[in-house]
Amino acid sequence: MIVVKTIAELKKIVLDVKEQGKSVGFVPTMGYLHEGHISLVNEARIHDDFIVMSIFVNPLQFGPNEDFDRYPRDFQRDEKLASEAKVDVVFYPDVNEIYPKELSCTVTVKKGVEVLCGKSRLGHFDGVATVVLKLFNIVQPTRAYFGLKDAQQVAVIENMVADFNLPVQVMKCVTLREADGLAKSSRNVYLSEAERDEAKEIFESLQQAITAIQSGEINCRTIKQHVIGHLETKTSGIVDYVEILSYPDLEEVEQIEDQMIIAVAVKFSQARLIDNVIITV
Amino acid sequence: MIVVKTIAELKKIVLDVKEQGKSVGFVPTMGYLHEGHISLVNEARIHDDFIVMSIFVNPLQFGPNEDFDRYPRDFQRDEKLASEAKVDVVFYPDVNEIYPKELSCTVTVKKGVEVLCGKSRLGHFDGVATVVLKLFNIVQPTRAYFGLKDAQQVAVIENMVADFNLPVQVMKCVTLREADGLAKSSRNVYLSEAERDEAKEIFESLQQAITAIQSGEINCRTIKQHVIGHLETKTSGIVDYVEILSYPDLEEVEQIEDQMIIAVAVKFSQARLIDNVIITV
Repeated sequence: MIVVKTIAELKKIVLDVKEQGKSVGFVPTMGYLHEGHISLVNEARIHDDFIVMSIFVNPLQFGPNEDFDRYPRDFQRDEKLASEAKVDVVFYPDVNEIYPKELSCTVTVKKGVEVLCGKSRLGHFDGVATVVLKLFNIVQPTRAYFGLKDAQQVAVIENMVADFNLPVQVMKCVTLREADGLAKSSRNVYLSEAERDEAKEIFESLQQAITAIQSGEINCRTIKQHVIGHLETKTSGIVDYVEILSYPDLEEVEQIEDQMIIAVAVKFSQARLIDNVIITV
Repeated sequence: MIVVKTIAELKKIVLDVKEQGKSVGFVPTMGYLHEGHISLVNEARIHDDFIVMSIFVNPLQFGPNEDFDRYPRDFQRDEKLASEAKVDVVFYPDVNEIYPKELSCTVTVKKGVEVLCGKSRLGHFDGVATVVLKLFNIVQPTRAYFGLKDAQQVAVIENMVADFNLPVQVMKCVTLREADGLAKSSRNVYLSEAERDEAKEIFESLQQAITAIQSGEINCRTIKQHVIGHLETKTSGIVDYVEILSYPDLEEVEQIEDQMIIAVAVKFSQARLIDNVIITV
């Protein structure tokens, strides 16, 4: 595995690879890798010949009250994990390599941002979209892999790819789960034993919503109330939101139609957990 | 020459061309072609093997008070001129092909827009940058050709290409001029005979500014006053602006340094003329 720090080096490697007729899979990350990232690499291996992973903590997507400097970083550990996962190239640029000067152009995301987790993170998705656009142009991948755990981010990127006609295929990868259905997350360790047991009810509530829809329920309000009721009865957590939106446009709708996302956020004493399911009817 | 209306057709053609190892030159236009456009095609012929011209009147760059519907269009004439200029493919999409639905992402241009002609066209360059980004991603050209007559547009695009790491080379093409130096423009026909004679003083005033700089003058205010004085003395037009800015950042500076643009706009009775020179010291 090669680690490259400059755009020029990376472009040269990718150009060589493409000239050999190989496809390039791209896994963008902010590092501090966990099994979610590794599952993206494994998915990329199925479809692509050559895997590029970027490790870049993007200052542009951190708000003024969000601590960019304190975001966890451990490059040595990341390098080891990426190598074990058989990543071909890790692109690990400095901030100055990606932002050599103040940007005169940025991407503005207008739709799908004032819902779900975006409500409390103004400008966050502009920063995400801008850096992903830059990384796509630098890496020029055949396919790019994103985890559906952060479904809003995936939706924003899918919309950007369509809106800007970006020549890349966005691959949506399923959320990894524990045996009882709890979505894997580095935050799960902050749960008490009792909370950890309750937390399985998050996925259970989403499964019940799917069952209701499959049985013919189409009223979003009814489904939402059922999910909230389930979470409030079965867990000690505080329901932050339950939203049912069109996907990937993330617009509120009254009835289940086409492709939808059901997303929840629940606050436990020391951890806020999110989960979602995407359904097509 | 082939005329294609869909993105899918165009991408197929360009892919074939690139697989033959040919370079692709791209000339984006809003149609109603004149010799300025043709000179871009001629320049593209020097560097590139295959020339794509787009003809698309972009609604996104027209303000609410600017008449998108009345923008002049004459596709038959354009097709003939493009064919004579040996364009290989004209990409002539409908508005719905480029904007199938409301965009959820757009490009926001933050620098270089509240100067020169941008002052009076709020949001104009956001629309230009967004459509050019889309066209770059659709055509994926090796080089793209823009005329320096609209130097602010070129600067915005150069900045966008750098900011977003777009894999395309922006080729800046010199302004075509009449024998007496007047920049060629379809608006020149609106000048009276007396005005047409005076209009050569626009380029003359820019030439005098260059001469002053070459003789050691570095104070922008002094140079600007000289250009304004020349235009007010030698023409009956009203000076709309004379600006001396860094290029391509388009920021005001007090002293001549690095790369600069000197740009003027003069209003005659029936036509507003613009011109500029870019100098490197």
